[in-house]
Amino acid sequence: MKIIIVGASGTMGKHLSNAFEKENEIIRATGSKGGDLQVDITSVESVEAMFKKAGPFDALICTAGPTHVGPWNKMTPNDFRTGLEGKLMGQVNLVLIGQHYINPKGSFTLITGALSNEPVPMFANASAANGAIEGFVRAAAIELEHGIRINAVSPTVIENSPQYFPYFQGDIPVTMLQLEYGFRKSVFGANTGQIIKPY
Amino acid sequence: MKIIIVGASGTMGKHLSNAFEKENEIIRATGSKGGDLQVDITSVESVEAMFKKAGPFDALICTAGPTHVGPWNKMTPNDFRTGLEGKLMGQVNLVLIGQHYINPKGSFTLITGALSNEPVPMFANASAANGAIEGFVRAAAIELEHGIRINAVSPTVIENSPQYFPYFQGDIPVTMLQLEYGFRKSVFGANTGQIIKPY
Ligand SMILES: NC(=O)c1ccc[n+]([C@@H]2O[C@H](COP(=O)([O-])OP(=O)(O)OC[C@H]3O[C@@H](n4cnc5c(N)ncnc54)[C@H](OP(=O)(O)O)[C@@H]3O)[C@@H](O)[C@H]2O)c1
Ligand SMILES: NC(=O)c1ccc[n+]([C@@H]2O[C@H](COP(=O)([O-])OP(=O)(O)OC[C@H]3O[C@@H](n4cnc5c(N)ncnc54)[C@H](OP(=O)(O)O)[C@@H]3O)[C@@H](O)[C@H]2O)c1
Repeated sequence: MKIIIVGASGTMGKHLSNAFEKENEIIRATGSKGGDLQVDITSVESVEAMFKKAGPFDALICTAGPTHVGPWNKMTPNDFRTGLEGKLMGQVNLVLIGQHYINPKGSFTLITGALSNEPVPMFANASAANGAIEGFVRAAAIELEHGIRINAVSPTVIENSPQYFPYFQGDIPVTMLQLEYGFRKSVFGANTGQIIKPY
Repeated sequence: MKIIIVGASGTMGKHLSNAFEKENEIIRATGSKGGDLQVDITSVESVEAMFKKAGPFDALICTAGPTHVGPWNKMTPNDFRTGLEGKLMGQVNLVLIGQHYINPKGSFTLITGALSNEPVPMFANASAANGAIEGFVRAAAIELEHGIRINAVSPTVIENSPQYFPYFQGDIPVTMLQLEYGFRKSVFGANTGQIIKPY
């Protein structure tokens, strides 16, 4: 299977690229550092160029999703745009444009997170972006053609991100293997329109 | 209670303004036609100007939330922006800016809809915007200060919008009275962070 992993240089993306490369052809797409190609998911032109360079593919995984982290009473509409343009519109760009490049029976797997339903202080922007991605995935699933599927993976904080532990008190960290299984279920399974909680 | 109703010239807004004006001071904010003042919720400057004109208030209701309606395989990132800037960022602007003008113990009540969890063809943009609003409401509720509350009302198709009935097969239309009770529960109740289904 030919799999594009967007965010391949990140904490999640690195793990997934290494895990899946044993049995698949992986195209590592990064924002700035290394990989097989670079893409800015907030730019329609850049996303178009990525799909042209990558050629037809069977699965796209996205673990790139920048958001604004900061205290509520100082949050401005401009701060809020970080997640709106990044985690939300960036991932939507990948699907709306990618649907014209993906092989029949291919799949899109996006990143969301527990914050949509379990907010914590400082992360309202991610809660909103996640909620949008989840509504989008359910809606896209009933309209995508040619057997193309779409799901999102929703971990709590992951074990390789200890810098976030203080914000997520009481959340049992998701292991990298659990995370990998969440993506496995979407990419190699048959579900569509699902929000996969790998825990 | 002094209540700003944004979208007061719309199907929902007209009903709510008339229902609530018996016992409250209502400021009708519309996009273009009539009312007490006009506002473009997609513009930060226009939203700031509205709050300056309206003065301190106890509750804000928003029933303005433009989205793109159209077939999936022709949907472009640009089409998608209609709901992103309108129903999503427009309502977020009202809260992020309005939090600095609202009275202590005031409330924000936003509009979402069943599409976040029950998609129908042509409405993926609204599904995403609704999902975002719901994640945002849950997150904002735990950070808003001075006893300020926030909820969203989530109807299915409403009885006064027969033009939408063909798209929402099998959805029992929400009556205008049910809709009104949904908003009543948020504005005059004590809940926060809730997605109120008035059916
Ligand atoms: N870490 C957690 O505990 C956790 C838990 C739940 C959900 N999440 C969500 O999972 C996602 C990934 O988390 P992570 O910890 O793996 O993030 P990360 O380590 O910061 O990695 C982010 C990746 O996204 C890429 N990227 C950033 N902006 C981009 C853009 N505009 N265009 C293209 N690529 C871009 C980065 O590329 P470059 O570095 O090359 O620029 C990098 O590869 C985030 O959305 C986060 O909210 C994380
Ligand atoms: N109708 C339904 O069956 C139904 C069911 C579930 C959810 N919803 C959601 O409920 C919301 C309202 O529905 P509705 O049927 O009452 O809509 P509507 O009749 O079309 O009314 C929309 C209102 O929003 C105002 N508006 C539009 N764009 C604006 C902007 N940029 N800035 C400020 N105001 C703006 C309009 O003002 P002007 O006309 O003065 O420009 C009007 O007052 C929508 O988000 C819809 O998705 C509707």
